[in-house]
Amino acid sequence: MQQDLAKKAAGEAAAAYIQPGMTIGLGTGSTAYYAIMRIGELVRNGMQLQAVATSAASEELARAQQIPIIPFEQVDSIDLDIDGADEADESLQLIKGGGGALLREKIVAAAAKEMLVIMDASKLVKQLGNFPLPVEIIPFAWELTFRHLEQSGASPVLRRKEGKIFITDNGNYILDCHYGRITAAPELHRQLNDIPGVVENGLFLRYASRLLIGYADGSVRSLSR
Amino acid sequence: MQQDLAKKAAGEAAAAYIQPGMTIGLGTGSTAYYAIMRIGELVRNGMQLQAVATSAASEELARAQQIPIIPFEQVDSIDLDIDGADEADESLQLIKGGGGALLREKIVAAAAKEMLVIMDASKLVKQLGNFPLPVEIIPFAWELTFRHLEQSGASPVLRRKEGKIFITDNGNYILDCHYGRITAAPELHRQLNDIPGVVENGLFLRYASRLLIGYADGSVRSLSR
Repeated sequence: MQQDLAKKAAGEAAAAYIQPGMTIGLGTGSTAYYAIMRIGELVRNGMQLQAVATSAASEELARAQQIPIIPFEQVDSIDLDIDGADEADESLQLIKGGGGALLREKIVAAAAKEMLVIMDASKLVKQLGNFPLPVEIIPFAWELTFRHLEQSGASPVLRRKEGKIFITDNGNYILDCHYGRITAAPELHRQLNDIPGVVENGLFLRYASRLLIGYADGSVRSLSR
Repeated sequence: MQQDLAKKAAGEAAAAYIQPGMTIGLGTGSTAYYAIMRIGELVRNGMQLQAVATSAASEELARAQQIPIIPFEQVDSIDLDIDGADEADESLQLIKGGGGALLREKIVAAAAKEMLVIMDASKLVKQLGNFPLPVEIIPFAWELTFRHLEQSGASPVLRRKEGKIFITDNGNYILDCHYGRITAAPELHRQLNDIPGVVENGLFLRYASRLLIGYADGSVRSLSR
C-alpha cells in the first residue's frame, strides 16, 4: 500500500520529462503502469506524441488510454524510454527482468536517447545482486547453458510459473541467478553474454540517464548521471 | 565434384580421432555429412559411442546410420565435437552459420573438450570476412537491431529462403553481415554480442582445437593449436 503510493509518485513524475512530438518507449510493470496512465491523460488533454511498447500488456494498457502506438518498423528513434527496475544503485546501474520482459526492454532502452527509470525507494541498493539476476536463454540444450552459468558463480534456478517452465515473449527460458553481491557488473555482463545459449541478461549498465525514486509520502528524488 | 572429394577426405579423416566410449558432437552441413557416414560405419563395426546432434537434419542422418543419439539432459560432457566451417584462418578462428545452425553449433562446441573442424581447402583464408558473418537476432523490433549492426560497419542483409524470411531452429532471424575484412575478430565478437537483440554471431574464435583440411587428391592437412 505504502509501496503503491511510492510507485505512483515516481510514475507520475515521469510526465514532466515528456515534450510534445516525442516518441516514447513504454516499460512494463507496476510502476510503469502509473506512468502510462499519466501519459494517457496528457494525450487526452491534447498532447501529440507516439509510443512503442515493451510488452503486449503495456501495449494493451496504452491503447486503452488512447496513446498512439506505432510499429517498430516506423520508428526512427525513441526520444525517451520510461521503465521500472528491480534494483538500481547510485551509479544508475540496474537489474531488470523480474517480469520476464528484459530483452524487449533492453532493445528499446538501447534505441532510446534517454532512459528514465521510475521506482519506489525500496529498489535503491548499495550494491546490486540481492535480487536474482534474470538471464534469458535458448531452450535448446538449456542444461548445458545452466552448467555454464553455475561455473560463473551463480546458483541458477529455472523460472517456473504455475508449475510449468516460464516462457518469455521471445519463446525462451529464464534462469534466475543468485549471486548475492555483484561486485564487477561490467565483467559479469560480458562474461554472461559470451556464453552461447545466453540471449541477454538483466544487467542494464549504460542505459539509465535518470532515476526517479518515489517515497510513500508522495515525494520524489531524482538522480542523474 | 573436386570439392566433394576434398570434403569427403576431411570428413572421413575425423574418424581417426574417435575413441571407444566417447560422446561425440555431430555438426551440420556437407562436410559433416561424410564424418557422420564414417562414424556410422564405426558403430556398425562394433564401436561403442554416443552422440548429440546440432540440427534436426544431422540427428536424422545419424539415426539412419544407427548412431546412438542421447538427449542433452543426459550429457555430462562432450568429448569431441566434429563440425565444418564456412571460413577458417591459420589461427583456427572460424566463421560458421552459412547453414543457419550457428547457435546450436556454438552451444555444442562450448560444451566440448575438443573441437575438430573438417573443411575443404577452399575454406582456409588469410583473413576472415569475405564470407558474410551470420548474426542470429530476435525477431522483435529487428529493424532496431539491424540499424545497430549497420553502425558496427556491416552491410547487413536479412536472410531469406524461397522469398520468405529465414527462421532458425530457435525461431529467430539471421542477418548476413558483409564486413569484407575482419581485422579484430575478438573485439567485433564482443561488440556484436553486446547489442541487445543479437542472440549470437558466427565467429568461433576459441573453440577449434584442430583443423582437418581436405584436398581434391584425397590428402588431408592437419593444423592444431
